Amino acid sequence: MAPRWKGKGSEAKALADPMSKIVSQLSTSLIQVDAHGLLSGCSVLLAVETEQMELLTRGCFGRPIITAEKDKQWFQLGPEEAFYLFYSLKCLKIVGEDNCHKNAFELWQYMKSKKASFPDSCKAYFHLRMKNWIVRSGSQYGVDFVAYCHHPSLVHSEYAVLVLSEEENGDMNERLRLWSDFHCTIRLCGSVAKTLLVVSINKNGHGAVSPSCLERFSIKEHIVTRWIPELSREDQSTTEKENQMQSQTGLL
Amino acid sequence: MAPRWKGKGSEAKALADPMSKIVSQLSTSLIQVDAHGLLSGCSVLLAVETEQMELLTRGCFGRPIITAEKDKQWFQLGPEEAFYLFYSLKCLKIVGEDNCHKNAFELWQYMKSKKASFPDSCKAYFHLRMKNWIVRSGSQYGVDFVAYCHHPSLVHSEYAVLVLSEEENGDMNERLRLWSDFHCTIRLCGSVAKTLLVVSINKNGHGAVSPSCLERFSIKEHIVTRWIPELSREDQSTTEKENQMQSQTGLL
Repeated sequence: MAPRWKGKGSEAKALADPMSKIVSQLSTSLIQVDAHGLLSGCSVLLAVETEQMELLTRGCFGRPIITAEKDKQWFQLGPEEAFYLFYSLKCLKIVGEDNCHKNAFELWQYMKSKKASFPDSCKAYFHLRMKNWIVRSGSQYGVDFVAYCHHPSLVHSEYAVLVLSEEENGDMNERLRLWSDFHCTIRLCGSVAKTLLVVSINKNGHGAVSPSCLERFSIKEHIVTRWIPELSREDQSTTEKENQMQSQTGLL
Repeated sequence: MAPRWKGKGSEAKALADPMSKIVSQLSTSLIQVDAHGLLSGCSVLLAVETEQMELLTRGCFGRPIITAEKDKQWFQLGPEEAFYLFYSLKCLKIVGEDNCHKNAFELWQYMKSKKASFPDSCKAYFHLRMKNWIVRSGSQYGVDFVAYCHHPSLVHSEYAVLVLSEEENGDMNERLRLWSDFHCTIRLCGSVAKTLLVVSINKNGHGAVSPSCLERFSIKEHIVTRWIPELSREDQSTTEKENQMQSQTGLL
């Protein structure tokens, strides 16, 4: 499925304004103002001025919060977003409720304590962001993330992303273990014109004690689509479609 | 959500032709011709003549199979359907691959060996059929069953049914254990205008050795709907809607 642009000219706009450049400008700008986020539950709250506000919005990090403050705009960053700006882009410092700076190890442990799947979801988020995808919560579609090839104002999200752990951890609380769950997910993805992307994380025997393990995790990507027999019968006119389907069929 | 009838006059047609009567006619007719089904994998194959064919179709049991035979129509019955006709209505006999009649215990054990969740799904199927719902496979919506208040030619299915076991059996391979699964299911149900009906089966400490245990299982029904804050604020005009929502909110 090709990206579904929102209206004429959106594709050209996106091409002229690559996401990699926006994120790099954001990073530089946050470093310049020595940005500090405040840990609040699982989120990080960040107050910025106009320049950073525009870049956060264009890069699609966090969501703006309405406050009474006039000269500052507050943003609420999700755990993976905050950790990406903090640990990967190194453009954000983070302060805990005790007013002390958190180091990488402390923040990692804190996020893990709030969200058990954080090492996996963080790896998946980093992986997609590094490829210049915009990654947002997928909760309204019952998945972990949705991924956009550019800003949501220009294009619909292309992928519904489920993050699975490859480990046999005895904890069966994971998605796609039952056919009915599979059918439900695929059907929903189809009805909202998204492709289901399953990102499985293999920890390769490493624990998740510190964030440095992120580099030792490996990733497999599977695209899962419906098998449509009509498109897969031997027939001149459909052979092209068939090949297309089969190359997409990762897991099924 | 009220039943969504298909076109004008459908509701009147349905009212004039109650499902309880159709099923009772079917039962009488199958007994008269001493109907025998053949066990084939998880299904039961049944050859019938015009009268039974019409009644099976009107009562929505099984699906017709196209064969070369002209004077007989074959039907393929799912495991719960076959067991309902066999055990509850006692209007169908069933013959195994060895050409011998199966008794209730043997058939129960056989179905269980083919489908581990059979005792639960069978109880749920019986429960809904006894209330004169038409119960069909829900696989295309990623649920166990869909339930119609009358024939699918007259009305859209009203409920998407998930059958859950109340037992703590250590096997976590069950639906709705994760929020993302919940969101996915609710969203899909909403987009196809069905209400999610969760049927939980409590075995009350009884095993599932023989079909007589079906009577000892108890059932809880929960309707699960989205919580829409806008509809639940204190406001004269929405109070009615609010009350409606809350009485429907079983699990959430």
